Amino acid sequence: MSVIIERLAIVGVGLIGGSFALALREAGVVRTIVGVDRDPANLEQALALGVVDEIAASAAQGVRGTQMVFLSVPVCSIPGVLQEIAPALDPGCIVTDGGSVKAEIVAACQQLMPTGCHFVGGHPIAGTEHSGAAASFATLFKGKRCILTPTETTDRQALQAVSRLWQAAGAEVCSMEPGHHDRIFAEISHLPHAVAYALVHAVGTADVEGENVLSYTAGGFRDFTRIASSDPAMWRDIALMNRAALLASIDGFSASLAELRGRIDRGDGDGLAEFFTIAKQFRDGIL
Amino acid sequence: MSVIIERLAIVGVGLIGGSFALALREAGVVRTIVGVDRDPANLEQALALGVVDEIAASAAQGVRGTQMVFLSVPVCSIPGVLQEIAPALDPGCIVTDGGSVKAEIVAACQQLMPTGCHFVGGHPIAGTEHSGAAASFATLFKGKRCILTPTETTDRQALQAVSRLWQAAGAEVCSMEPGHHDRIFAEISHLPHAVAYALVHAVGTADVEGENVLSYTAGGFRDFTRIASSDPAMWRDIALMNRAALLASIDGFSASLAELRGRIDRGDGDGLAEFFTIAKQFRDGIL
Repeated sequence: MSVIIERLAIVGVGLIGGSFALALREAGVVRTIVGVDRDPANLEQALALGVVDEIAASAAQGVRGTQMVFLSVPVCSIPGVLQEIAPALDPGCIVTDGGSVKAEIVAACQQLMPTGCHFVGGHPIAGTEHSGAAASFATLFKGKRCILTPTETTDRQALQAVSRLWQAAGAEVCSMEPGHHDRIFAEISHLPHAVAYALVHAVGTADVEGENVLSYTAGGFRDFTRIASSDPAMWRDIALMNRAALLASIDGFSASLAELRGRIDRGDGDGLAEFFTIAKQFRDGIL
Repeated sequence: MSVIIERLAIVGVGLIGGSFALALREAGVVRTIVGVDRDPANLEQALALGVVDEIAASAAQGVRGTQMVFLSVPVCSIPGVLQEIAPALDPGCIVTDGGSVKAEIVAACQQLMPTGCHFVGGHPIAGTEHSGAAASFATLFKGKRCILTPTETTDRQALQAVSRLWQAAGAEVCSMEPGHHDRIFAEISHLPHAVAYALVHAVGTADVEGENVLSYTAGGFRDFTRIASSDPAMWRDIALMNRAALLASIDGFSASLAELRGRIDRGDGDGLAEFFTIAKQFRDGIL
């Protein structure tokens, strides 16, 4: 492929940022990648491993002279980082992000962009349980979706440039309205995390004749609750930033659980078999 | 090891029953194993694979002349099968089971036992996603727990014989009161299944601007909801047979979820971080 971006800055060279850099280099669509990271050791490692070509001591310094900036920092930090780099952006520079909540981020970032520069919200649906530049690899996004969330004011050429980069990185790109994105991810990602955390909390504090019931858990429980081992600070931020959609999802789930509870309480065997069968069909349908 | 049981009947030669047979044969603690199964093809396969030494056409026929019977049939079928074999049991015969709900089963089975025969409730905590005699293997129970649930009237020698067999099969045997067992498994197994079914039900029926949100799910959602692919009939039976304990567990979980919901609703960042951190500590503690 031919070069799309001469100079790209990646702020936050972790698993996502680093893998984006490796994928773009392998595709030959970016000439030079400059990395910025709040962790100097991680940044040095990114340079040593060839994940980035150059490193910069600050985000503002790193974005100078670039045509595109990818913000791959914790979702709550995105507006703050953008505020910091905004004065240093070259005219026409495109800023995009990888945050897993979009409506609040996109609204805040569009406000912060200098005239003549363009923001495009994005969310690559990929990851592993590892983190850091050393965990990154070029094929992380291959065949995975990347959702871009343009609004009415998003520059169409900027949107196209970001879209082409993600496609070059191997992702299937689709676009949707930021609020729609957040309602979908409230259901399929944020709700399951809330449920897993609440489940482990409930089972961990359950008092069954004073015994620690967690000591009896086997592989099934461990698998089911793995996502409750996720970073608490990250999930605090997501819960706060996608509050309205997550509350609606929790309420929908609570209604389903109340329905199931009622069928158990009434001893409604047919109703239980029906409920479990419908759920199983939904579950088997996503295999 | 020396022979503990001359002739053992296994009613239900699936993954659990078949693996018990293979483990006992490998340990040399049982001379002859006779298999019974409602599925003739599965039973023929069990014989052909050497999982059992003999097969019988009916449970009553199979248990004649045995010193021990292992009932490894769906939990709701256990009392019915016992009713069927009770008249055919030799004096002194021990009947044990592998059902995942105990209080109701143990009470029903103790009632059904002929005088001079002994019932011992059991629950091996092992399994795979596969089923049938062909899926069984001798090391399934190695290092896994097997919970026996004696009551005040349980014969101590019968309890000891069942315990020795499970130990010979590689399991770590512990004993507890049937109701205590059911309250523990309501928390760590039945509640997670109810939650997973309710979650998939809620997400599958969620209406986000008319879009099928399940099409956006990735590996995390699939892993988290795998247990909602379990057999609906089995989980209907478990929900009905462990109703009181499961309802209490659901209520405990709902209280935890309501607490979490309140912290999200109030935008209580510190409270959310604390909640997630406590849950993560519980979760990481069982690794």
